[in-house]
Amino acid sequence: MTMTILGYATHAPADDLGPFRFERRDQRSNDVVIDILYCGVCHSDIHNARNDWGGAVYPMVPGHEIIGRVASVGVNVTRFKVGDKVGVGCMVDSCQHCAACQKNLEQYCAEGSTFTYNAIDRHDHMPTYGGYSERIVVSDKFVLKVPDGLDLAGAAPLLCAGITTWSPLRHWKVGKGSKVAVVGLGGLGHMGLKLANALGAEVTLFTRSPGKEQDARRLGAHHVVLSTDAAQMHAINGRFDLIIDTVPYIHDINPYIPTLSIDGTLVLVGYLGGLEPMLNSAPMILGRKSVAGSLIGGIAETQEMLDFCGQHGITSDIELIKMQDINVAYQRMLKSDVKYRFVIDMASLSAK
Amino acid sequence: MTMTILGYATHAPADDLGPFRFERRDQRSNDVVIDILYCGVCHSDIHNARNDWGGAVYPMVPGHEIIGRVASVGVNVTRFKVGDKVGVGCMVDSCQHCAACQKNLEQYCAEGSTFTYNAIDRHDHMPTYGGYSERIVVSDKFVLKVPDGLDLAGAAPLLCAGITTWSPLRHWKVGKGSKVAVVGLGGLGHMGLKLANALGAEVTLFTRSPGKEQDARRLGAHHVVLSTDAAQMHAINGRFDLIIDTVPYIHDINPYIPTLSIDGTLVLVGYLGGLEPMLNSAPMILGRKSVAGSLIGGIAETQEMLDFCGQHGITSDIELIKMQDINVAYQRMLKSDVKYRFVIDMASLSAK
Ligand SMILES: [Zn+2]
Ligand SMILES: [Zn+2]
Ligand SMILES: [Zn+2]
Ligand SMILES: [Zn+2]
Repeated sequence: MTMTILGYATHAPADDLGPFRFERRDQRSNDVVIDILYCGVCHSDIHNARNDWGGAVYPMVPGHEIIGRVASVGVNVTRFKVGDKVGVGCMVDSCQHCAACQKNLEQYCAEGSTFTYNAIDRHDHMPTYGGYSERIVVSDKFVLKVPDGLDLAGAAPLLCAGITTWSPLRHWKVGKGSKVAVVGLGGLGHMGLKLANALGAEVTLFTRSPGKEQDARRLGAHHVVLSTDAAQMHAINGRFDLIIDTVPYIHDINPYIPTLSIDGTLVLVGYLGGLEPMLNSAPMILGRKSVAGSLIGGIAETQEMLDFCGQHGITSDIELIKMQDINVAYQRMLKSDVKYRFVIDMASLSAK
Repeated sequence: MTMTILGYATHAPADDLGPFRFERRDQRSNDVVIDILYCGVCHSDIHNARNDWGGAVYPMVPGHEIIGRVASVGVNVTRFKVGDKVGVGCMVDSCQHCAACQKNLEQYCAEGSTFTYNAIDRHDHMPTYGGYSERIVVSDKFVLKVPDGLDLAGAAPLLCAGITTWSPLRHWKVGKGSKVAVVGLGGLGHMGLKLANALGAEVTLFTRSPGKEQDARRLGAHHVVLSTDAAQMHAINGRFDLIIDTVPYIHDINPYIPTLSIDGTLVLVGYLGGLEPMLNSAPMILGRKSVAGSLIGGIAETQEMLDFCGQHGITSDIELIKMQDINVAYQRMLKSDVKYRFVIDMASLSAK
């Protein structure tokens, strides 16, 4: 037995998204059924919808920044009850027994974690469909509690943009006295500024375009450096313990390496692909510097981030849209015309 | 007052090395004067002699893997006495007050450490000349004690090839249970195998050419993987905590990244320059993997390595040569025709 759900899907790489009715699995004993209130719109939704990374399966219902209320719970679910405010991020399942899963690093599951959409459920082998929809059914281990007091629409982007920047901040032990820089001021970058600031770090924004000073400072940056200005770049030689590079397209990371301190790390979180122009090893060797990558974060770490955001009143800066506006939103995102995340008000879906 | 010394120098990038008389500074109060017994021949000696990295100053006396006996000490030197067996590596001084120096990371001195040759002394502004010579005068802080029982000729390469592989092994906390791979079986690589093995790691050699199995195992490798064999590479997917890449020329590091475990690091110690073909960030992001660089090691760490080698009876596999054979040795090194380090018997210099 399944339930029929209304969502928004795309049927081919070049198609717009439009209304789509599909089946959600019937609730298993450890499942939580969630009425979706809000869903953030992530850059990877566009990449997946257009099959930029390959492997797209259509019809595809994107969306992995999900906030909702529990509609029902399976008989073995103890951590959630009907009415709870909950979140779901990029993953809805993993093998639960590999070394990564056992270290709460489900995002690096050796068997591959099950993504929230454009994946295959590991138990019933049905396609997964994301948060651009009325309801979702998720194993309780992958459901997050949303702390009281957080604006629910603004909390949605925490599930991907938030955790993607939080995880490297925590893994590389950022705290008071740390010097952190963020490259790029988009959905990820603006969360990086807020979270690094709240963790007590001295925070710098690298940007390629002037005019972002005021916004960057409001979001938590103590300094703004124009990365195209050689004098500004030279002045911060050797400064940063951690640089979080959120830029989602191919770009030259070489100019940032000299601004790392000894043992500093530049971590890529936005761009999957070849690093061009070629990365020069010399400044890395001459200061024991690292270039690393990081993917979202584990479930326990995501809960930790949500709790931290609850304590510090941190949410994403958002622009609330109707489900019907999603194709226009995609167009605007491709021009970086959003401050700083679109979030779909899911009430608009059935209100139509 | 200075002392006149006989050494071997080159006078231009394309020149052979030949006998050269030059002045060493008079002993300062904290100086140790060392009669050089042996000097290892490092790949960077060739790079510097030929000005491959720019900045060469001629005449140049190479050599930074120096073993000798103390001939005299300045009035303020307490740690050494005449007759002590000592070593000198790649550095002979640093600022001693920057953050790096204060953390015993003189190799990353913010003001630049003073290299053993092809540099300028930070006090008297005279050129520094290396170990292809009878004697050297070095500030006591940069003189290492050579433990009893070590073969002195075989100990010389520990001062550069040894510490260059030891430092990343220690920094990335290699010990029992660690899985370490070494790329390249030359002067650095063969020391990497010995040291990683002695630290208790499970050790793998990556090689591009078959036929190195037996030697690799004798040197400490438990496994040998032909990096050109896709099946062998696939079988070790996700295995290594640390890969030490000793290859001294441009090469593709992408094939090694998938063999790193989650949170694993590939550290470049041999090649300064652009990484081509371009490094792909995707496997780094999908497993929180890092690419890093590391330069020799600090002085305290070098002493630690020498003491460890003394306890474990570790020296380099060497081919002892006369000073007069240096130009032939360079030719052979360029063809990787040495197992695994040339060491100059400095007695040959004056015996001529
Ligand atoms: Zn996302
Ligand atoms: Zn797993
Ligand atoms: Zn060397
Ligand atoms: Zn210093």
